[in-house]
Amino acid sequence: MSIIEPASSQRVVPLPSETMAFRAAMPFVTDGGVAIIPLDVAYQTYGVLNAEKSNAVLVCHALTGDQHVASVNPVTGRTGWWETMVGPGRPIDTDRLFVICSNVIGGCMGSSGPASINAATGKPYGLDFPVLTIADMVRAQAMLIDHLGIDSLFCVAGGSMGGMQVLEWAANYPQRVFAAMPIATSARHSAQNIAFHEVGRQAIMADPDWQGGRYLETETRPAKGLGVARMAAHITYLSENALQSKFGRKLQNRDARTFSFDADFQIESYLRYQGLSFVERFDANSYLYLTRAMDYFDLAAEHGGALSLAFKGSQTRFCVVSFTSDWLFPTSESRAIVHALNAGGASVSFVEIDSDKGHDAFLLDVPDLFATTSGFINAAAKARGLAVAS
Amino acid sequence: MSIIEPASSQRVVPLPSETMAFRAAMPFVTDGGVAIIPLDVAYQTYGVLNAEKSNAVLVCHALTGDQHVASVNPVTGRTGWWETMVGPGRPIDTDRLFVICSNVIGGCMGSSGPASINAATGKPYGLDFPVLTIADMVRAQAMLIDHLGIDSLFCVAGGSMGGMQVLEWAANYPQRVFAAMPIATSARHSAQNIAFHEVGRQAIMADPDWQGGRYLETETRPAKGLGVARMAAHITYLSENALQSKFGRKLQNRDARTFSFDADFQIESYLRYQGLSFVERFDANSYLYLTRAMDYFDLAAEHGGALSLAFKGSQTRFCVVSFTSDWLFPTSESRAIVHALNAGGASVSFVEIDSDKGHDAFLLDVPDLFATTSGFINAAAKARGLAVAS
Repeated sequence: MSIIEPASSQRVVPLPSETMAFRAAMPFVTDGGVAIIPLDVAYQTYGVLNAEKSNAVLVCHALTGDQHVASVNPVTGRTGWWETMVGPGRPIDTDRLFVICSNVIGGCMGSSGPASINAATGKPYGLDFPVLTIADMVRAQAMLIDHLGIDSLFCVAGGSMGGMQVLEWAANYPQRVFAAMPIATSARHSAQNIAFHEVGRQAIMADPDWQGGRYLETETRPAKGLGVARMAAHITYLSENALQSKFGRKLQNRDARTFSFDADFQIESYLRYQGLSFVERFDANSYLYLTRAMDYFDLAAEHGGALSLAFKGSQTRFCVVSFTSDWLFPTSESRAIVHALNAGGASVSFVEIDSDKGHDAFLLDVPDLFATTSGFINAAAKARGLAVAS
Repeated sequence: MSIIEPASSQRVVPLPSETMAFRAAMPFVTDGGVAIIPLDVAYQTYGVLNAEKSNAVLVCHALTGDQHVASVNPVTGRTGWWETMVGPGRPIDTDRLFVICSNVIGGCMGSSGPASINAATGKPYGLDFPVLTIADMVRAQAMLIDHLGIDSLFCVAGGSMGGMQVLEWAANYPQRVFAAMPIATSARHSAQNIAFHEVGRQAIMADPDWQGGRYLETETRPAKGLGVARMAAHITYLSENALQSKFGRKLQNRDARTFSFDADFQIESYLRYQGLSFVERFDANSYLYLTRAMDYFDLAAEHGGALSLAFKGSQTRFCVVSFTSDWLFPTSESRAIVHALNAGGASVSFVEIDSDKGHDAFLLDVPDLFATTSGFINAAAKARGLAVAS
């Protein structure tokens, strides 16, 4: 279902994946003061926009996600990353809602990023691509939403880095967000999370194949470095209990330790696989840029130093969700958001879901998350005068 | 105070650091079935062994520790790693006790390890050194204790990997251990901890300067890989709260974000320093071997599958210590040890110390740890008929 957009003011951009692409007609200047020209935003949509354009849901993806939220990813061949949540009859029901998901800028699935061609040189940007913020990503999404002719989004939803975008949308475009669902996220990246990101970046930059970020010019990739970065990050996505119950000290296809550095344990084999498969689908420089944007995220600092100011007088309805075993974005981070929303006078419900799946819970089959989302979406739809699932 | 040992049955081994060295007269065969010939054990002692040889305390060091527990490390120039705990008037009081600390085999501070010369080739072992277990380390220590003419140790104490050695001593040499103090440790390495170790090993082995472990032959070092490994590990030694209160989102010698991949944040600068300084003092292959030994540690598996069997009928007095904010070796791991000791009928006291310093608390200035240790050591000394501090 490749759809190339015919809009007159935008150029058609060929992309490696089946998706739509929007090229901004206006110059885009980052928070760091650098213009990205042209700026491309690759996206997918599901469902039908109603005549009032009042049923649009923007889904924001996480660090290693993409626009293929509810359909097969043409690069990996895998199902959409949130098919449990988005689709016909799902909590975010594409039979009733028009769902948009765009690849964040800085990413590597068609939106402008460090692997894009720098018009000034004719070569991939590499580290000449400007360092971005979450606000930059959201501003690019807002240009896409403008382009689609949508004034007000019914809902903006996402987890992790996606949740950061949700918060940024609600803070910077309060009139355009009817409902917001930040999941397993934080209003500012913690020291520990910056630390883990820095480990990943150093692993990538330590790989000689990274070549100062110019690896695409020689058709190489810092696969080992990116693999190590992914392995380290992957541990933080899971809970200790989940690792213990899933893997424990089980050996991998062997009866005894080999007294070597082979992957004796299942957890080692699993992690190595995670590293290897990740490098097949993700660009190392994009990993640098997206982790950096998360590190830089501090919504209170953007709003006079108090998080409540970011949401002052907001008419948006919020549903904040955390998971008990998420130690990357623990419930305390969600509570801080809830407190600020309360202080700002916003309407907010807060659900801490009991799960042993760790941070990854937001992507997994967690019935309480689906029930929470359905309840929130249906109540908001009713308030918006949209059809509600029977 | 370089002391070269004159024992007749052992050869004198010159070492790079001021320390004593014991060379085993008997062949040493690892749990993996490989002989290490010769086997050297580098060690330090503090205080005076009494005539009854009843006041000896063996201190076991952690992954990146060494034998210089209470005196300046000749390699780094830094004070001993446990001077707060061991020394004149300290909880482990060298005015009354004879303290021994040996570099674990597999290490890089004088004991046999992958950087040692392989007699068969005349070159450094590299990966031809056999993979070791914690039990191997302890068996080598027992040979040293034999050599010193000590039948029964008054106490064996250590934290983290040192605590694993304490447990192994108590399980395998119950008659030779009067008191045992395993601190911030576990009777079996968890899946999450194996996972973090595997990330570190992959980071080292991804560094082309590692050269399959043969880097010493070309006078290179996999500094970047070892640095990344250390950075990742270092995060696990600290608590999230400690990182947040110490570093938070503070910037490093700058007023604003640089929109680059420089170390904008203090936590980044701190981690990079930890990585850089570690490679100055530690051998990358030793890091592989010691993490592997910890991964392989599973005391219950060594004793018929039940941890209580490891301690059945033990006459040793135990003091098990954990720290509230230690998420690498959480209190649940210590509780499992305590339950097994209770089930085995052993004498055990258990102290969970309230601290926000994370796993590193056992190395830091934590008054409750000193008070706990003093109390335990003095009571045990009284029971052993040793002089007790007034």
